[in-house]
Amino acid sequence: MPNQTFTQITPSAQIATNTHGGRAKCLQRLLRLKMPVPKTLAISFETVHAIAAREPDHTDQMMASFASGLVSVRPSSEDPDWGGPSSILNIGMNDLRHRNMAKDLGEETANAIYLRFIQAYAVHVARLDPDMFELPAKPTNEALKSALHNYTDETDQQFPQDPAHQLSGVLRSMARAWEGTSARLLRQAKGAPVDAGLGLIVQEMALGVGKGKSGSGVIHFVDAATGQQKIIGRYRCQSQGRDALHEGHDVLFLCKDKRGACLQDALPDVFAELLNFGDLCRTRLREEMQLEFAISNKTLHILDAVRIARRSRAAVRIAVALANDKIITRNEALMRIEPRALSELLHHQIDPDGERDVFQQAIAASPGAASGKIVFSSNAAQASAARDEPCILVRNETTPEDVRGMHASVGVLTIRGGVSSHAAVIARGLGLPCVVGAMDMVIDRRKNSLTAGNGRVFKEGDVITIDGTLGQALAGATNMLEPALDGSFAALMDWAAEVCDIGVRANADTPNDARLARKFNAQGIGLCRTEHMFFEQDRLTVMREMIFSDSAKDRMEALQQLLPMQRADFFELFEIMQGKPVCIRLLDPPLHEFLPSTREGQRELAEALDLPVSDVIRRVDALREYNPMLGMRGVRLGITVPEIYDMQARAIFEATILARGKGNTVVPEIMLPLISASREVELIKSRVDAVAAAVRVEQGQDFDYRLGVMVETPRAALRAGDIAQNAAFLSFGTNDLTQMTYGLSRDDAGRFMSNYVQLGVYPEDPFHMLDTEGVGDLLSIGAQRGRAVQPDLVLSICGEHGGNPESIEFCRNAGYDYVSCSPFRVPVARLAAAQLVIAGK
Amino acid sequence: MPNQTFTQITPSAQIATNTHGGRAKCLQRLLRLKMPVPKTLAISFETVHAIAAREPDHTDQMMASFASGLVSVRPSSEDPDWGGPSSILNIGMNDLRHRNMAKDLGEETANAIYLRFIQAYAVHVARLDPDMFELPAKPTNEALKSALHNYTDETDQQFPQDPAHQLSGVLRSMARAWEGTSARLLRQAKGAPVDAGLGLIVQEMALGVGKGKSGSGVIHFVDAATGQQKIIGRYRCQSQGRDALHEGHDVLFLCKDKRGACLQDALPDVFAELLNFGDLCRTRLREEMQLEFAISNKTLHILDAVRIARRSRAAVRIAVALANDKIITRNEALMRIEPRALSELLHHQIDPDGERDVFQQAIAASPGAASGKIVFSSNAAQASAARDEPCILVRNETTPEDVRGMHASVGVLTIRGGVSSHAAVIARGLGLPCVVGAMDMVIDRRKNSLTAGNGRVFKEGDVITIDGTLGQALAGATNMLEPALDGSFAALMDWAAEVCDIGVRANADTPNDARLARKFNAQGIGLCRTEHMFFEQDRLTVMREMIFSDSAKDRMEALQQLLPMQRADFFELFEIMQGKPVCIRLLDPPLHEFLPSTREGQRELAEALDLPVSDVIRRVDALREYNPMLGMRGVRLGITVPEIYDMQARAIFEATILARGKGNTVVPEIMLPLISASREVELIKSRVDAVAAAVRVEQGQDFDYRLGVMVETPRAALRAGDIAQNAAFLSFGTNDLTQMTYGLSRDDAGRFMSNYVQLGVYPEDPFHMLDTEGVGDLLSIGAQRGRAVQPDLVLSICGEHGGNPESIEFCRNAGYDYVSCSPFRVPVARLAAAQLVIAGK
Repeated sequence: MPNQTFTQITPSAQIATNTHGGRAKCLQRLLRLKMPVPKTLAISFETVHAIAAREPDHTDQMMASFASGLVSVRPSSEDPDWGGPSSILNIGMNDLRHRNMAKDLGEETANAIYLRFIQAYAVHVARLDPDMFELPAKPTNEALKSALHNYTDETDQQFPQDPAHQLSGVLRSMARAWEGTSARLLRQAKGAPVDAGLGLIVQEMALGVGKGKSGSGVIHFVDAATGQQKIIGRYRCQSQGRDALHEGHDVLFLCKDKRGACLQDALPDVFAELLNFGDLCRTRLREEMQLEFAISNKTLHILDAVRIARRSRAAVRIAVALANDKIITRNEALMRIEPRALSELLHHQIDPDGERDVFQQAIAASPGAASGKIVFSSNAAQASAARDEPCILVRNETTPEDVRGMHASVGVLTIRGGVSSHAAVIARGLGLPCVVGAMDMVIDRRKNSLTAGNGRVFKEGDVITIDGTLGQALAGATNMLEPALDGSFAALMDWAAEVCDIGVRANADTPNDARLARKFNAQGIGLCRTEHMFFEQDRLTVMREMIFSDSAKDRMEALQQLLPMQRADFFELFEIMQGKPVCIRLLDPPLHEFLPSTREGQRELAEALDLPVSDVIRRVDALREYNPMLGMRGVRLGITVPEIYDMQARAIFEATILARGKGNTVVPEIMLPLISASREVELIKSRVDAVAAAVRVEQGQDFDYRLGVMVETPRAALRAGDIAQNAAFLSFGTNDLTQMTYGLSRDDAGRFMSNYVQLGVYPEDPFHMLDTEGVGDLLSIGAQRGRAVQPDLVLSICGEHGGNPESIEFCRNAGYDYVSCSPFRVPVARLAAAQLVIAGK
Repeated sequence: MPNQTFTQITPSAQIATNTHGGRAKCLQRLLRLKMPVPKTLAISFETVHAIAAREPDHTDQMMASFASGLVSVRPSSEDPDWGGPSSILNIGMNDLRHRNMAKDLGEETANAIYLRFIQAYAVHVARLDPDMFELPAKPTNEALKSALHNYTDETDQQFPQDPAHQLSGVLRSMARAWEGTSARLLRQAKGAPVDAGLGLIVQEMALGVGKGKSGSGVIHFVDAATGQQKIIGRYRCQSQGRDALHEGHDVLFLCKDKRGACLQDALPDVFAELLNFGDLCRTRLREEMQLEFAISNKTLHILDAVRIARRSRAAVRIAVALANDKIITRNEALMRIEPRALSELLHHQIDPDGERDVFQQAIAASPGAASGKIVFSSNAAQASAARDEPCILVRNETTPEDVRGMHASVGVLTIRGGVSSHAAVIARGLGLPCVVGAMDMVIDRRKNSLTAGNGRVFKEGDVITIDGTLGQALAGATNMLEPALDGSFAALMDWAAEVCDIGVRANADTPNDARLARKFNAQGIGLCRTEHMFFEQDRLTVMREMIFSDSAKDRMEALQQLLPMQRADFFELFEIMQGKPVCIRLLDPPLHEFLPSTREGQRELAEALDLPVSDVIRRVDALREYNPMLGMRGVRLGITVPEIYDMQARAIFEATILARGKGNTVVPEIMLPLISASREVELIKSRVDAVAAAVRVEQGQDFDYRLGVMVETPRAALRAGDIAQNAAFLSFGTNDLTQMTYGLSRDDAGRFMSNYVQLGVYPEDPFHMLDTEGVGDLLSIGAQRGRAVQPDLVLSICGEHGGNPESIEFCRNAGYDYVSCSPFRVPVARLAAAQLVIAGK
């Protein structure tokens, strides 16, 4: 019956979320559960749209159907998150009804109700200045007269007395507000479609004021922050609407409480009824709801119920509890959690109720929050860590030389860089909160101070807080919420793992990373970057000796010193991973990253190597590159200075034998970075095979290994067919692949990326969200061409995108075997993958 | 008859180049032309291979067939360029024949012939030390005895007396030499297949010694350096083989000559016969040949004929002359010239006969040669040019700031960089000889000196020579050959243009470039880079003002000053090109390229702009990029600072109207650089459309223009379908596309590229030769996806590869409309394209 303008909500009425909105549907469900909901009419999206266009609204008919003559109007959009106009109560109030009510309930009550309506009508319907209609401290007769007078003064009309006319005004004003530009933009930002409709519901007022024990309140049954079962809410005697949420002497606690009177004592039957309704909601509506209720002379009315807003940690606990109580299935529990929201559970968070003294809004690069003293150098960070003083490392940018400093810090703040800058990538790997691209700040290293864009100055040692989830830097320390890796989280993750049909590995460079990977049940290490292993002081010195060697023999001698250290590194990783696969990427960065960039460092190095400073400077200059991203690194280094990969392969194989001696079945995976031609793979493979053969003979032990390719250049994706002839696996490094596909340096993109995303040039920062159209095309081409040559080729992605739900969907569709992401993203990835399986069923 | 071991060459014998080699075939042709060729046997590839494997050689039978009993053996490979063992003469000489010959011709002649054979046999067959068998000054009896004695001493055997045994040794030694590793590698380097065969020919000796007028010589009929008709050669009385090539009192000139006696006078009939044979070769063999001949007692014998080796300029003149004389067709003439060899005609070349004092061998980056005084800075180059002193600019590397200095120089030498470095690209554009990657050199700017790897020091002002064709730097000045843009060249180019079915445009940034483009008949400008227009001093200042402006309004005001200059730039180009299309790329480089990189320059700029130095330094630092290649440049700049493209579009349109006012029909093409998303094209297109509309209204004139995209990122190629919706053309910038497809910076690749090519990792430097497998795949994908959306989309390439024959073949096959290359490559490209058409017929 599309022409019907309104529908009374009854258990059997034709009410649907996509025609009348979520609130209307919810009220119908409450009625089906036999809750005492006052009489309610629902107006469909279609009708509201017609009302906005000034078509007839049949308000006479509506008002006539309500016995009391007083109604409220509330919005009912398809998704409550999309917002909507404010509710308006007490429609139907006029001079006549005021007089009658004053007789029944007393003047003050009648004044208060009339005043509240006049205010709402004046502001929301007649669009008058809210300041003129502020509610008075006391609802006196004078105040009422003054309000009516003001209305007439401003509009040249009497305050409307006809209830149908009043309702008509309210409906039209709400309908038009919904269709206004700013409301539309706001809801579109929350994901609403352009043509999202608004339903309205007109409900008979259940007055919480009047004779006997009356009042109104809200109640819910779990803690919205933690998800723990707990009765929470407010009740206020002789009140309406959301009055109970304001402080006042007539507010009661709900349950028994030492601090004062409570509803449980005052109206035990009503209280029991409320608990029963809460339980009904939980078991029958299968959700934790907040109930809005009114009590009229001891009679309970349920006016509204909404799904309670909750923080992520609460969401997990609630969903798991519902599943454990068999109210929902485990799959439903899995579907109820937004994967990205999990990261809130994994890290410290700034207490949302605390004050925030934000001095810099920049790019959120690694989630979580931390407070600590400002340090401006990695050395200072290490010194601070040695004193057990938490510190925040503040740098213009970080370089590989800063990794130790980052390890020693609790958070990182950089002036340059984007979400895929060095600082961001490393911080996410370390699970360290990080904010980058804080372009308004200036560091003065001479004064050891930091000047924010607004002129505020911070000195070394001053305490600041980094919120890597929101991309903020705050002055001082803040209250923190602890990570919530509790039983609920573990249960949810176990369920996800059971459902998940694509592997999830972790990117892990250090034993700590590997332990984290284990903790989050990663199915192996998908990317172990070995370069970080070379930046410890003693190793760095040897690397530098190697760089200054002129012959292969000298290089081999220098590298020989690194062999036992690398062997120990790999052995430890194999031990921690207990037989799960470990994919080790051979050395990737250009050699100049191992040389000091400052003159002072160069002088020190010259002394250490007993060389003239000029030699050191010349070598540093000779290794300098215009575009290091596109320079002599990765396999290019492996081919040009083959001794490095020889040493690494030997260390891997010797560690494999050691780990097998301890009972772990290890089949190491060796990954070659920056491949652009299949011949590179052939050349390195033959050397690595030779090293393996030599180690087998020397040790008298056999072992297997798998050699694969990191696909980071568009050419490697295009030539995946050739490459697959010599590779057991292809792992797509989507960071670099994105850089090269777009011709876009992640370190430089920050300068215009936000502009680009705002203008819609890129729908999203492609370093943040996998570009399925361009980079994804290469992922598909690579997968298809590689598998055409070798059907059991293992395919994965190991870039920063690995943990993103969108990338996982893409990879599953393209037939990839696993994704690899930073340990902290493993739960997100696994949940996202599980949801895809469930949604596909 | 495959088992026949040898075949006598007769006009009807079964002799083919691919079974018996080119020399055998040529001798058969001479016989067919009835030239007096001595009796000759040809041994097939197959038989020679069998002989190397010690199968029977039937030399008895062969020797028996020669009346005189003396023969020569010469190699006959399929292609004469593939080399082969040296010829051996006088086989069959032994003690008995020596005695008889001494009687007939005198002892000295007999001794000389025997000695020559002993020497050849000892060195090439018995592999004895050549020093022991040097030919004596006088062929005395003692010398002969000593040679025979030495032979016996070294081998413990008598010198072989059986002619068949001698021949057997010679054949086997030649067969095995051909199959040796070093010979195989050498000929493979010249393009020979792995299994290239060697044929041998055994020819009866026509002795140039003995009774009556006897001797030997060579003759040809064109100048091998210029191709001009001229009788050239040597004749020596009483000589054998190539004796005539050595100086001596008994050498005759061929034609009449004031300096001495000549063959023409001595033996006029023989001389006339030779001329006749030369003419027969030219008209019947359709080639300029060199004849090797012997005269025995006034009787002429033609021993051999080879296509004369020639320089490129001679090749062009010869081919054009043959075609003009209707001996070959124009298409055949076109097919006879190696396109790349044309560049030798377009530039100065070092005289091949002069001395070369090479102090640095590096990378040949731009062909041609020039001598000049060393300068170490662009300022010094300009000063030198002002004094009319040719100079060579020597830099560690060049930057856009050096372009003016390069204009002022006659050649460029840089220490860093590869074939696609800034210096190389600009130099090729300017047609300036350039050598890059001279890594062994060190510049000392304080001393203004250059130290080469071998310790040689050059000061500013010292004269050096750059050979950009061979990649050499030479001390001092050298004799030069002038460019050869003569009538033959012009004729060849006209013929090529008639045949050519793909367009050839030129990359041209300046009026000079454009004039060159016209000179070489380019069909338009395919790439006009506008950035060079901003580096002139007055413009640079304005650009810098613009960069330091804080508001769009200030930027527009600064740019307003550039508008008239840009308009004049474009107007001049349109005038020169006279209605041929001009494709203008909007500003591409990152802004930091316009700021001074030295502290001194920054101080000057601060003064000029009346700003604190610290502000200038901060802005320079803020604009600094990690990977400028992948940074904020191209359309990213156009979108972020839209005022620049607005100004350029306006300048183009206003210039269009001006040029149309002068009667040229101009439809300018505007090209957007570094596109990675179709939305970029949309955004710029709408602004450019708006500028066009405004100019149309202001000037009251209508005009058309075409907007297209430079495809430089892999993503632009992959998304060509989207992009084609807003683009009239796609021009593939293969330089940047190669960089991004490989993840390889052209500026940094020099460090390992030669290593990579040597190891066969890349078959060729991909900046030099289009990578058809990877980059080419993107060219095909882009073409196919673009044309699918818009069938009349114009496709082209405008990178450095544009002029390469291989790229042109690729582009023709992929359905491209034109290629664009530097003006000096236009003839190469056009000839290559013509050859493809002819070869395809």
